[in-house]
Amino acid sequence: MNIKPIFFVILFFSVIVIGQNDKDQLRKIYKASLTDGKSYNWLDYLSNEIGGRLSGSLNAELAVQYTKSELEKLELDKVWLQPVMVPKWVRGNPEFAYIEVAPGKTIPVNLCALGGSVSTPLEGIKANVIEVQSIEQLKNTHRDSIKGKIVFFNRPMRADIISTFEAYGGCVNQRYDGAKEAAKYGAVATIVRSMNLRLDDLPHTGAMSYGETPINKRIPSAAISTNDAERLSGMLRIDPKLKFFLKQNCKQLKDVQSYNVIGQITGSQYPNQIIIVGGHLDSWDLGDGSHDDGAGCVQSMDVLRLLKLTGVRPKRTIRVVLFMNEENGLRGGLEYAKISKQKGEKHIFALESDSGGFTPRGFSFEGPDYKIAQILKWKNLFEPYLIHYFRIGGSGADIGPLKDKDVVLAGLSPDSQRYFDHHHASNDTFDAVNKRELELGTATMTSLVYLIDKYGFNNIDFQKKIKD
Amino acid sequence: MNIKPIFFVILFFSVIVIGQNDKDQLRKIYKASLTDGKSYNWLDYLSNEIGGRLSGSLNAELAVQYTKSELEKLELDKVWLQPVMVPKWVRGNPEFAYIEVAPGKTIPVNLCALGGSVSTPLEGIKANVIEVQSIEQLKNTHRDSIKGKIVFFNRPMRADIISTFEAYGGCVNQRYDGAKEAAKYGAVATIVRSMNLRLDDLPHTGAMSYGETPINKRIPSAAISTNDAERLSGMLRIDPKLKFFLKQNCKQLKDVQSYNVIGQITGSQYPNQIIIVGGHLDSWDLGDGSHDDGAGCVQSMDVLRLLKLTGVRPKRTIRVVLFMNEENGLRGGLEYAKISKQKGEKHIFALESDSGGFTPRGFSFEGPDYKIAQILKWKNLFEPYLIHYFRIGGSGADIGPLKDKDVVLAGLSPDSQRYFDHHHASNDTFDAVNKRELELGTATMTSLVYLIDKYGFNNIDFQKKIKD
Repeated sequence: MNIKPIFFVILFFSVIVIGQNDKDQLRKIYKASLTDGKSYNWLDYLSNEIGGRLSGSLNAELAVQYTKSELEKLELDKVWLQPVMVPKWVRGNPEFAYIEVAPGKTIPVNLCALGGSVSTPLEGIKANVIEVQSIEQLKNTHRDSIKGKIVFFNRPMRADIISTFEAYGGCVNQRYDGAKEAAKYGAVATIVRSMNLRLDDLPHTGAMSYGETPINKRIPSAAISTNDAERLSGMLRIDPKLKFFLKQNCKQLKDVQSYNVIGQITGSQYPNQIIIVGGHLDSWDLGDGSHDDGAGCVQSMDVLRLLKLTGVRPKRTIRVVLFMNEENGLRGGLEYAKISKQKGEKHIFALESDSGGFTPRGFSFEGPDYKIAQILKWKNLFEPYLIHYFRIGGSGADIGPLKDKDVVLAGLSPDSQRYFDHHHASNDTFDAVNKRELELGTATMTSLVYLIDKYGFNNIDFQKKIKD
Repeated sequence: MNIKPIFFVILFFSVIVIGQNDKDQLRKIYKASLTDGKSYNWLDYLSNEIGGRLSGSLNAELAVQYTKSELEKLELDKVWLQPVMVPKWVRGNPEFAYIEVAPGKTIPVNLCALGGSVSTPLEGIKANVIEVQSIEQLKNTHRDSIKGKIVFFNRPMRADIISTFEAYGGCVNQRYDGAKEAAKYGAVATIVRSMNLRLDDLPHTGAMSYGETPINKRIPSAAISTNDAERLSGMLRIDPKLKFFLKQNCKQLKDVQSYNVIGQITGSQYPNQIIIVGGHLDSWDLGDGSHDDGAGCVQSMDVLRLLKLTGVRPKRTIRVVLFMNEENGLRGGLEYAKISKQKGEKHIFALESDSGGFTPRGFSFEGPDYKIAQILKWKNLFEPYLIHYFRIGGSGADIGPLKDKDVVLAGLSPDSQRYFDHHHASNDTFDAVNKRELELGTATMTSLVYLIDKYGFNNIDFQKKIKD
């Protein structure tokens, strides 16, 4: 009976000491990232020496080799490639499009094929245009008004929504499902307003799907810039009979061999408890994929390096996973989860960075409530670094397949305001990434991984039991 | 005795209703700013049609006329110019500088005169260089090592400090006081590493002061780019005898007439309680002053417009003040406070935006504790807009002279990570400002002004008394 108070006194002082240690360790991590980080240099190479890394492309292969060799230099316990077959879609020659207001009188349009789209016939497609704001509106339109026409999906992203990802979520079905739905009504092609909150001249590509549409019923699908969407819409109000021409010769080829790139520090006490941190190595082809998701890859690589650099000897296994094919297939994420399950691996935590390399604001989490509650208790440790936003719900596409009743999945949440200015467009380039913002993201990720490695979730179970 | 509980029940329900109204009103304000804001268009004109607005320049005069006429279009109760004499410093011809490693063998250097500096002789200055990290180090250096030389202040901004403003504060005395101090030891000129966290080729100007140094003892002072600072420092280690050449023909002219631009909505209930919101209209001359501080001006103008647009009829007087000459004299801020005092005006709250047009993160406050405590109770109203950071200490230079024991002064705190990439340099330009980020700042300012107008601080006194 006498032991209890003493136990609590000891516990109390341990907590204080632990608190101070953690504060100091986070300070060390942020300092190391901001003064001695590698993420920005790695991103420079990935973006400027390699460039866009579409799944199945030579560049994607080069990125696999490069990141593997860089991880090997870090003297981790293990670095390996995990084979995965990926789709190979190629854009072909630059697309060509215009609005025809009268025979011979045309206005050029900035257009790009959507990823996965079929080509137009060699001579292109010229047809009248019907503008709709949504797939629902399409379904309520008489078939005769659609047949033989190009369907133009023009619902803009809502500027009044603070999270641009939420605004994106409210629009992207036009891009993803538009062609599949329009084909049912006899449309000959679809064009979609780019998922971009700004008015500019850049078309933004992205994945689309034909679903179960038979091959001979598939129609070409493309995006036009927001300026062109505004212009086309305005011109249609004046002349609903105007014609639109587009030509693209993209193609879906056979699946090819590719890889997830994985590096690991094996845990010193609990090697079977795995923590992963990652991003996706593939990107679209129009820019160099600096924000989406070169940033997430180099940040994840640097998490392991910064842990070592700041003297952390992880108790649990920390793995960096650079997933292949997030953009048009998610094959890397699915394969990783499949192999992991086959091996009976136990993931306790997975963190993805796939929302751009901007100033970090916080994290999103999904997983058991009591585990998230434990993480939320660390919030004050992050406040000196202006990390305030810990949100429940959502994590990352690549780690999604790891979801089960026990694991905690998390996503880094950077400031989202500029993200869709660059997303999937030709200006997703290295110059749009700020070194400090990127490094703050790296440090924020490293800090959370450090805390989870140190405390795990078993202790929480234990503490929970004590309280119960 | 029976009345008390009923009173509290009524109070309780009022608070709930007020809470919901405020939530709705903030939603309206943010929506209006993001979908119908004017700040970005105004900034476009100020930056691209007028450009850099150095105090006393023609551009500064054009900016006064432009903003006055735009404020007049808003149908406020009153718009006026407040005369203020300002210093007029001119850069003259572009500066020219190089490192001479051997006679005839030179390396060009990106250099700009600091604001307020004297010119070099017509033929320029060529001299040996002594590098120091601080004014303290200078003071501990033997006079013979300094005499006849150019003093090179090379202390970098600390990358490990999260707030870049704090890192700036730790360096800027080299720029401001360097020439004054070096002149005492017989130096012939000073050059300072630009206040920039990045390594790039752009020199950053900014104010310097000779203090009480007699005119004939004043030495030219200039900034060199961070890349040049690194190069020069490296070369000095190899050859301490190398020479540095600089030539600049800047000049301080006589003071000239200029103006603060002021617009006002007169309060419907408490016209004598004044709330001001502002930025400074002058800028440096190398860029177009978009972030510093075109952004703060257009945001402040839009605060009054958005209040009207969202149906607010202010109880108190809301004034927008575009201060002249923050950068090299603060004459506008001083004059405004002086005139205000003469008139016996009572300012209850002043908010300045002068930290760039980036994503807003929160506010800094100075003033009586219990008033700030009241503002902090509104924090949760701002959370949906990712405004988390309410800090005690600091506000804005222009509103500083209003400080007394009663007023609350506040500064908008945007994300600071990119600010010093552009600050006082030729890349402080419109393209570096993101429309949404600017508009979110405007909405955040408008929301706080709305709440302060609605509740004032008298009610707080009242509530405080009830509790006491």
